[in-house]
Amino acid sequence: MLSFVNDYSQGAHEQILRRLAETNLEPLPGYGADRYCQSAKEKIRLACKSPAADVFFLTGGTQANAVVIAALLDAFEGVIAADTGHISVHEAGAIERTGHKVLTLPHHEGKICAAGLETFLCRFWKDGNREHMVFPGMVYLSHPTEYGTLYSKEELEAISTVCRAYQIPLYLDGARLGYGLASPQTDVTLPDIAAYCDAFYIGGTKVGALCGEAVVFPRGNAPKHFVTIVKQQGALLAKGRLLGIQFDTLFTDRLYWRIGEQGIEMARKLVKALEDTGYPFYLKSPTNQQFVILENRQMERLARQVSFSFWETLDENHTVVRFATSWATRPEEIEALREILAKEA
Amino acid sequence: MLSFVNDYSQGAHEQILRRLAETNLEPLPGYGADRYCQSAKEKIRLACKSPAADVFFLTGGTQANAVVIAALLDAFEGVIAADTGHISVHEAGAIERTGHKVLTLPHHEGKICAAGLETFLCRFWKDGNREHMVFPGMVYLSHPTEYGTLYSKEELEAISTVCRAYQIPLYLDGARLGYGLASPQTDVTLPDIAAYCDAFYIGGTKVGALCGEAVVFPRGNAPKHFVTIVKQQGALLAKGRLLGIQFDTLFTDRLYWRIGEQGIEMARKLVKALEDTGYPFYLKSPTNQQFVILENRQMERLARQVSFSFWETLDENHTVVRFATSWATRPEEIEALREILAKEA
Amino acid sequence: MLSFVNDYSQGAHEQILRRLAETNLEPLPGYGADRYCQSAKEKIRLACKSPAADVFFLTGGTQANAVVIAALLDAFEGVIAADTGHISVHEAGAIERTGHKVLTLPHHEGKICAAGLETFLCRFWKDGNREHMVFPGMVYLSHPTEYGTLYSKEELEAISTVCRAYQIPLYLDGARLGYGLASPQTDVTLPDIAAYCDAFYIGGTKVGALCGEAVVFPRGNAPKHFVTIVKQQGALLAKGRLLGIQFDTLFTDRLYWRIGEQGIEMARKLVKALEDTGYPFYLKSPTNQQFVILENRQMERLARQVSFSFWETLDENHTVVRFATSWATRPEEIEALREILAKEA
Amino acid sequence: MLSFVNDYSQGAHEQILRRLAETNLEPLPGYGADRYCQSAKEKIRLACKSPAADVFFLTGGTQANAVVIAALLDAFEGVIAADTGHISVHEAGAIERTGHKVLTLPHHEGKICAAGLETFLCRFWKDGNREHMVFPGMVYLSHPTEYGTLYSKEELEAISTVCRAYQIPLYLDGARLGYGLASPQTDVTLPDIAAYCDAFYIGGTKVGALCGEAVVFPRGNAPKHFVTIVKQQGALLAKGRLLGIQFDTLFTDRLYWRIGEQGIEMARKLVKALEDTGYPFYLKSPTNQQFVILENRQMERLARQVSFSFWETLDENHTVVRFATSWATRPEEIEALREILAKEA
Repeated sequence: MLSFVNDYSQGAHEQILRRLAETNLEPLPGYGADRYCQSAKEKIRLACKSPAADVFFLTGGTQANAVVIAALLDAFEGVIAADTGHISVHEAGAIERTGHKVLTLPHHEGKICAAGLETFLCRFWKDGNREHMVFPGMVYLSHPTEYGTLYSKEELEAISTVCRAYQIPLYLDGARLGYGLASPQTDVTLPDIAAYCDAFYIGGTKVGALCGEAVVFPRGNAPKHFVTIVKQQGALLAKGRLLGIQFDTLFTDRLYWRIGEQGIEMARKLVKALEDTGYPFYLKSPTNQQFVILENRQMERLARQVSFSFWETLDENHTVVRFATSWATRPEEIEALREILAKEA
Repeated sequence: MLSFVNDYSQGAHEQILRRLAETNLEPLPGYGADRYCQSAKEKIRLACKSPAADVFFLTGGTQANAVVIAALLDAFEGVIAADTGHISVHEAGAIERTGHKVLTLPHHEGKICAAGLETFLCRFWKDGNREHMVFPGMVYLSHPTEYGTLYSKEELEAISTVCRAYQIPLYLDGARLGYGLASPQTDVTLPDIAAYCDAFYIGGTKVGALCGEAVVFPRGNAPKHFVTIVKQQGALLAKGRLLGIQFDTLFTDRLYWRIGEQGIEMARKLVKALEDTGYPFYLKSPTNQQFVILENRQMERLARQVSFSFWETLDENHTVVRFATSWATRPEEIEALREILAKEA
Repeated sequence: MLSFVNDYSQGAHEQILRRLAETNLEPLPGYGADRYCQSAKEKIRLACKSPAADVFFLTGGTQANAVVIAALLDAFEGVIAADTGHISVHEAGAIERTGHKVLTLPHHEGKICAAGLETFLCRFWKDGNREHMVFPGMVYLSHPTEYGTLYSKEELEAISTVCRAYQIPLYLDGARLGYGLASPQTDVTLPDIAAYCDAFYIGGTKVGALCGEAVVFPRGNAPKHFVTIVKQQGALLAKGRLLGIQFDTLFTDRLYWRIGEQGIEMARKLVKALEDTGYPFYLKSPTNQQFVILENRQMERLARQVSFSFWETLDENHTVVRFATSWATRPEEIEALREILAKEA
Repeated sequence: MLSFVNDYSQGAHEQILRRLAETNLEPLPGYGADRYCQSAKEKIRLACKSPAADVFFLTGGTQANAVVIAALLDAFEGVIAADTGHISVHEAGAIERTGHKVLTLPHHEGKICAAGLETFLCRFWKDGNREHMVFPGMVYLSHPTEYGTLYSKEELEAISTVCRAYQIPLYLDGARLGYGLASPQTDVTLPDIAAYCDAFYIGGTKVGALCGEAVVFPRGNAPKHFVTIVKQQGALLAKGRLLGIQFDTLFTDRLYWRIGEQGIEMARKLVKALEDTGYPFYLKSPTNQQFVILENRQMERLARQVSFSFWETLDENHTVVRFATSWATRPEEIEALREILAKEA
């Protein structure tokens, strides 16, 4: 069946598989001390224009979020996030398991804003009972967000300014960063993210890798003994090469960007197909996730011919669903979808 | 340089890489719900003669230990292990991080014994202060142990009998299980382990996989909502296929056993080379890790020509070191080592 | 200065001090095994009409909440509470520190309702992504709430019915329960609470004790080895007698109720004084906490003559403040307040 | 029955009860912000000759240990303690529950030594695998130890020197410090402890208080936002006055020392009675806990006439038991014990 259900349905980009095969029998040190990890880190530093960056490779997004957030927070602190943020809703309480509260702000299309953040922080520090409350210790953004939306450079800068005024780190979850960087509607570059954030991860799993996320502390500001922290949380791969080789490949010849561009080009075709066939959008997403409002019976008919994700109930008769493209989406799949959409419009 | 430093220096067995490539573009559901995971689980159930077994795939050994142990223990309980056990020494406190104490018993060649275990449990339950102490909530074994040694079927049965008498689960860390099962000196089979233990994992990382450990609850006794527990600890891969395809391959045509046998055959040659050249063993290991006593200056000379692992200081002038073989060790490497050994004997 | 700032400004009811002095030199076993603890437990069982109840004494409210909630939840579960609940806002993240998320529902005057609870639970169990979410594992109520309001018997029964339908325990934080039971506007008795809830605590600290809260599991349903859980969280007093003697005294000759009635009678006079002098209430509270809207400059003038608590900003020019009475409030203090209120009205 | 079972069998020293009664109706701010807490802190600073000390009051010893140790350690660190240390054995895993391992050193009569500590630290920092191990992050001593023994000033200084060389804090558990300071065999003063340690607590519960331990960070080196950390662990009393008034009384007119001296004088008489009647000591304790070897049938006969604590099995026929004196022990109780001892010798 035609699948637009997510962006992690296939294995890896073929160049990654090829490199894994080519390097397979080379004996390498374990736990990320191999030369491919070193090379990948160096290429990421260059791409971020952050020559002093500390870079670490983890296997998944929830893992990266839990390890980094726990390492950045003091015991008495929590992390501020949009109420729709991945860590707030869809990580099974992984953050709380490390002992920290997720302090939520209301979202607009998946994003928080600098003004709302500042109001929250200002109130906290004025509150006479604050010693009995969770201290806001850092800010979490996802970019693209859970609704596929992107922060503008101006928005990101404003949030960063608030964080620096209150001396708390800004962390960005880049699970789908490749699609965000490749969007024609963005003015945010990887060096911008490195400049505005204190930690972030460059997502591999959803952008062509088998697994893997590159955590970056752009100014050499990794928490002390971070490798041991990673080990302690069961997140240190013995064969670190698996992650190093993948990221080394992704950051060679702009592969990470080319993969993102492929997903975005497919998303552009998808949007056109949806528009042409008259489907209303829940919101305008500039990336590879598209949110569409379906009448419930229409949704049932479509679901028999194409897979997509249920997102949320809009009203009694309507549902918001998500169609996702990826580096692996082929133009003929969009065409096949267009026919189905036209038939069921 | 010639490397006997560990058993995870290379990538994956070529059949695994081939299967990953062949299945790469097939769209599959995420988070372990794909058909390769299902097939691998079924093959593992068969190999364990445990048709009701619950099987889950995690990425690494420390992760498997921390997730399983935390899930099996009540808040007031700790896990009993040999004082040389991996969880006691080399997992950076991953178990304590989940809130549980590792209660240590003295080891003999890396193993604990049923009698020592029973004495410990008996004393605890007689102690009038036990409400102020950590309750022994389960037993952890590694097989092969950190010294490459193996429990006999009789030893395993005796420990299992004590655990059942005290109604605490027995858990076995099988990071190197493939080499244990393939040893000519063992009488323990995979169905034996499934029969005597309440949980165990079949190690992939050190036995030919890129990454991956198969956690088995042999009588359908997985902790409730185990997938959510795995997710919460950041241990659930989005592309579960990466683990499913690997284990499906390992459990097809006895590949897991053949890999183990290859490592053991190389270990046999290694032992012969060491014996022939007159190196004393620290203990007799029936598996792929061999522990040798070196005079310190001899160790320095050898270290310039071959890599091995420092294990422990024996006395002022002698050191215990480890040579490890694996599925990837080639006979000509053993021969090259033999020459070096002879020269430096 | 005249103080209505809270209900824990004084020491203990004189009868408690007297009993502590009378029993002071009697040698007693430690850790709650003394005869006063036993006697107090028996009296509480009688008062709750719960002959099988398990009763434990802890020192404070946040401690009781953290210990009980962590003991009742599985690792993958969180606790549902009003967004204004004490555990949500004013316990410094004590619940999250035990690894569990507080899942918030919108409040109405500090309360949640059965319908909102049912909708939340129903949606969770229908959500296809629920394995990636925090499972709702119990419900937390405070009674009186943080706004002094009370659940009616009908409301409590309805919430209890939902909890039982979804097989999750209902827990009630009774930090100020004495004032709730003594309110003329309640139809809820202690046996009602024992019948509808699966765990609750009877607050001592704010109702005449030096310290101490009595945790009740009304149907003998205390978590296994609860004393060890209490010890492990640093909550087991060596001289358990301090808590036992206090609760034994509070539950002799209705002292706990008489103390509550005294606080409520003073609250009645306080309300009259506020009404007579024309101060608007933020909401109608039937217990010992009264929430009044003050114009900001008026608030500043009052604050120079009487102490009260800042509660929340209403708008640019108005603030909600709290006046609290207690067992130790004297009628002449209300009269003195009335004069000040009249002058500044 | 005659009781030498422990030093927390009675309530409080009468002067403490008197001060609690005298101050009872005085309205005071909550959570330790009252003037008695301030006064007690100032007196403790004076007694410690540490004018910059941060002082906090907690309710019990396990609580103090867990809160302080968790606050002083980084996530990747554990606490070094004697294998007989209270945190190692008798706190139900309270330290592990905060996520940290207790790293044990062998004890001699309950004590560790500077040389053994240095060897341990030196080996750790030389170990090539240390990134996979728990980092030694602080040292825990109890003084008096669990065997009633005391560190000499020279021993304490040597341990402190090692800690400072390795830049890890030294923490001293003074649950029974009053008896240690009052021993004629000690050369360690409270200012010595303040000078050599980075944190310690002055025990109240076992030295005349109803409850309470004074945690001291002698050089103003309390962890950031320590009050919130205390609150988060459920250890912040609403009526902080209960602790402040007790410690203010204990540190007025040398009451804390006089209580200790009383316990020690009774211990001297106890030792004499035991010596005179020919009972062998397990070791020589200079404080209020005395460890005696009893023949098992003799132990049974004695146990019918006097209560003491079982300590450990010596051999098949002999048991080590503990007799404890306290501030509340009366000379006539020692005389009555002497008669029983003589009869059963």
